[in-house]
Amino acid sequence: MLRGLMMDYPLTVDRLLDHAYKLYPHKRVTTKQPDGSLHRYSFADLYHRVKRLGNVLHKLGINQGDRVGTFAWNNYQHLELYYAIPCAGAVCHTLNIRLSTEQLAYIINHAEDKVIFVDATLLPLFSKLADNIPAVETIVLINAQPGIETPFPNVLHYEDLMAQVEAEFEWPVTDERQAMGLCYTSGTTGNPKGVLYSHRSLYLHTMGENQATALAFTPDDIVMPVVPQFHAMAWGLPYSAMFAGADLIMPGLHLNPVALADLIADEKITFPAGVPTIWTAMYQELRANPRDFSHVRCLAVGGAAMPRGLIEAYERDFGVPVLHAWGMTELSPLGTISSLQPQHRQLSDHERWDLRAKQGYPIGGVELRIVNDAGEELPWDGTTVGELQARGPWVTAGYYKVEPTAEHFTADGWFRTGDVATINHEGYLGITDRTKDLVKSGGEWISSVELENALMGHAKVTEAAVIAIPDERWSERPLACVVLTKDAGEVEPNELLEYLEPLVAKFWLPERVVFLSEIPKTSVGKFDKKVLRARYANGELS
Amino acid sequence: MLRGLMMDYPLTVDRLLDHAYKLYPHKRVTTKQPDGSLHRYSFADLYHRVKRLGNVLHKLGINQGDRVGTFAWNNYQHLELYYAIPCAGAVCHTLNIRLSTEQLAYIINHAEDKVIFVDATLLPLFSKLADNIPAVETIVLINAQPGIETPFPNVLHYEDLMAQVEAEFEWPVTDERQAMGLCYTSGTTGNPKGVLYSHRSLYLHTMGENQATALAFTPDDIVMPVVPQFHAMAWGLPYSAMFAGADLIMPGLHLNPVALADLIADEKITFPAGVPTIWTAMYQELRANPRDFSHVRCLAVGGAAMPRGLIEAYERDFGVPVLHAWGMTELSPLGTISSLQPQHRQLSDHERWDLRAKQGYPIGGVELRIVNDAGEELPWDGTTVGELQARGPWVTAGYYKVEPTAEHFTADGWFRTGDVATINHEGYLGITDRTKDLVKSGGEWISSVELENALMGHAKVTEAAVIAIPDERWSERPLACVVLTKDAGEVEPNELLEYLEPLVAKFWLPERVVFLSEIPKTSVGKFDKKVLRARYANGELS
Repeated sequence: MLRGLMMDYPLTVDRLLDHAYKLYPHKRVTTKQPDGSLHRYSFADLYHRVKRLGNVLHKLGINQGDRVGTFAWNNYQHLELYYAIPCAGAVCHTLNIRLSTEQLAYIINHAEDKVIFVDATLLPLFSKLADNIPAVETIVLINAQPGIETPFPNVLHYEDLMAQVEAEFEWPVTDERQAMGLCYTSGTTGNPKGVLYSHRSLYLHTMGENQATALAFTPDDIVMPVVPQFHAMAWGLPYSAMFAGADLIMPGLHLNPVALADLIADEKITFPAGVPTIWTAMYQELRANPRDFSHVRCLAVGGAAMPRGLIEAYERDFGVPVLHAWGMTELSPLGTISSLQPQHRQLSDHERWDLRAKQGYPIGGVELRIVNDAGEELPWDGTTVGELQARGPWVTAGYYKVEPTAEHFTADGWFRTGDVATINHEGYLGITDRTKDLVKSGGEWISSVELENALMGHAKVTEAAVIAIPDERWSERPLACVVLTKDAGEVEPNELLEYLEPLVAKFWLPERVVFLSEIPKTSVGKFDKKVLRARYANGELS
Repeated sequence: MLRGLMMDYPLTVDRLLDHAYKLYPHKRVTTKQPDGSLHRYSFADLYHRVKRLGNVLHKLGINQGDRVGTFAWNNYQHLELYYAIPCAGAVCHTLNIRLSTEQLAYIINHAEDKVIFVDATLLPLFSKLADNIPAVETIVLINAQPGIETPFPNVLHYEDLMAQVEAEFEWPVTDERQAMGLCYTSGTTGNPKGVLYSHRSLYLHTMGENQATALAFTPDDIVMPVVPQFHAMAWGLPYSAMFAGADLIMPGLHLNPVALADLIADEKITFPAGVPTIWTAMYQELRANPRDFSHVRCLAVGGAAMPRGLIEAYERDFGVPVLHAWGMTELSPLGTISSLQPQHRQLSDHERWDLRAKQGYPIGGVELRIVNDAGEELPWDGTTVGELQARGPWVTAGYYKVEPTAEHFTADGWFRTGDVATINHEGYLGITDRTKDLVKSGGEWISSVELENALMGHAKVTEAAVIAIPDERWSERPLACVVLTKDAGEVEPNELLEYLEPLVAKFWLPERVVFLSEIPKTSVGKFDKKVLRARYANGELS
């Protein structure tokens, strides 16, 4: 082979940080602290503290490849850890604070975390792990008062450690394939599985997000990751925003609708990013107490499908365009975004909202395909439904300490997402279901997600989850679990079915409906259908 | 080392092409053909022809790693070659039509081109090589009439070959380090040197250009590379524009100011890109015959410094913002762009033009530093001048078939650009000179480039080149070679010196001035100071 004669330049996280520091030393990170006050500092301040933190890690006995846990809200200290741990050659293992004690213990022990950085505001939660994580050598507390009591034997304080070390630190990573981050997915079956990112994948994901056809960050942006840093690397935003010179706003633990709406308005945020439930709640708040959101160029939403009605409502009522995105922990996580293109300018408002409600086109670098049961590629016609598979430089090739299986990877090197989807002729993805969320009724598929979206279009419905329940005649039938609006009053199932009738195929109509006060949610705010399935496993509705 | 568990996904050119095809099959390439008519087709059409062309290359005996030459204007066939040659595993060697016959023969023989694709409109020029390139097996003619006569033994026609092959072709490249392109720089001393790009470097350069903080292409763009495809890969624009879904306009051989201005206006081009001499000439045309250029979001300029006065004039007179860029063949080529940032909005017009006249900040992925003679890094203060060095994933690590030397590479892995520059605290590069263009007068440096820019600010001066000539007392003194405007009338050197006096240090004033009818130019339109230096080598001015 004739090799090109270009520099063998490793794509490592310290290169991203250096660029942000050298070009944008004056740009700012603002954190809403536990007491509600704002902590502000510059990229230059952050950079110098990251170097100190490298020395702290060294002093704590962290070696190349060691896993270092974080258990924290979105704040500047967590951001420092996002950079310092990989830049020091270790692996940043973000722990999802919303998992159960059992799951957390499993994950920490499976990853063999040597040190864990814990937000003191989360100590009541974290302390439950005291007897279950014996291999963890040190706990380092962030945001802690001196003398705070914990059930752990070896506890140190973040700022104490920072004050004790040298200011200079040399980045040691020279191989872009080295691991830099670890993130477990809370699977619906079996134990959580870890996705182990490399410096290369993170670097390329950062460039991918910063394409003008993707998130398009520039120094004009003020980005707020509401999506937690403990969830899918906060969608990579802490890296891509800083690499592009965008300011960062970290909301800390203040995730209620009023606090978020205030922060967006006060800090003139251009790009707030979070899961749909956050924006659903904030919509109600904005209706009650309008604010000036004219600086918001994109309300970014991912992690679950945003109801079309809410996309419409944000734009119609507040002039805020919603950017619908799709990703997975296994994709670093960004896969697609639903930006509009020049040919869509002529569409009606409703056609544009239909399009914005799709998951969107793959960003440059991500390859998608849909296949049938035989693994044959299906056409991009917007109607043919198939299993969604992905490939690219920031797609996982396996799970940590698990042999890759045909359940997750195809023989020709594609990742099986577990989603079922259409792709239209312009490349716009429409996720219809998780493979396991399909209702198989009389040999035909019923899409629970489509039923949910249709139900949530009803004026008296705030949330709806549809699951399969056993049925003698049809093998499975859909059960609609519905949460009504506060002022809905009495609603008969028939009212909902009549509403659905023109919207879906007749055999899809869920003759069984239960009204709940809320839909159980997973740790990341998605509908937890596992719980619903367990509750109605025998087909009994009471 | 703990490796990340991400896909080992090679960054290859066929991935770029596939993305453009799958997402933007309807987007268009428009070529102004030799007869002036417009050829239009879609990315889908191009894609299918590139697959055919892969088979053509195979049929011509091209194997992995073979060099395939191109000698052509910017047109759709040349674009097909840009993709098909690397996608078939060979190396696309673009030949600069403006080089001398001797230089071309040297380059073709040095690269061992097996096949060369020649634009028939350039046959009179190319035919001069008939006796000098014996190892070239086949010449393939583009845009040729049947039965055209040539002095070459084995000549085929592009469309004949395309008609004879299968439509399907499998991309064979699986290693991103494989060579994909070859481009010789016409050095000022010694033989031309070849830069051998890899698939990886080209892929990353494409992503780099498409960052929102760089060229920021989207499907809203209509991009015209006026910069030739035979020069520094047309700045990578054919790849980055298509990857982002931007339409491409190829001007062919129609590079006169009227034709270019018409094309920009008629095709509503958003991003015309070329060297300063092109835009200098077009400015005069637009003054005489104004056109609607409101759709131009950036008039991109690189390859040489755009005079500040012209940057100002384009914006002031036509509302066209100029995007000043700096690059080198050795950098694939993009290094910096001079976009403005939020903090510059408050500047006065004149301050903004000053900034736009700088070469700008390094785009994400490119690292720059300035060093002194001892190799020590110098501060980014906007005034300290040092030797400019670069590093990054699309920077060359050597020249084809040449051992790397300390003249071009530092021991710690940086490329020595040969430029002398300042960098300000915001990362904006200001090239002051080529290392070899400095005038060393009495132990002090005089910047020939600054003198030139100052002289070109005089109303009666169109072009000015400053070179060092020998001087008994000062060792070297500057000589100003000046071209006056047509209606300037008689001008005394003193008039120019008086004009310069408040603008530069007193010892910089060039007491020697010659008036020329034109400044000699290199093949790519830059001032050819070699010729001037030879002419005035003995210090005699007549």
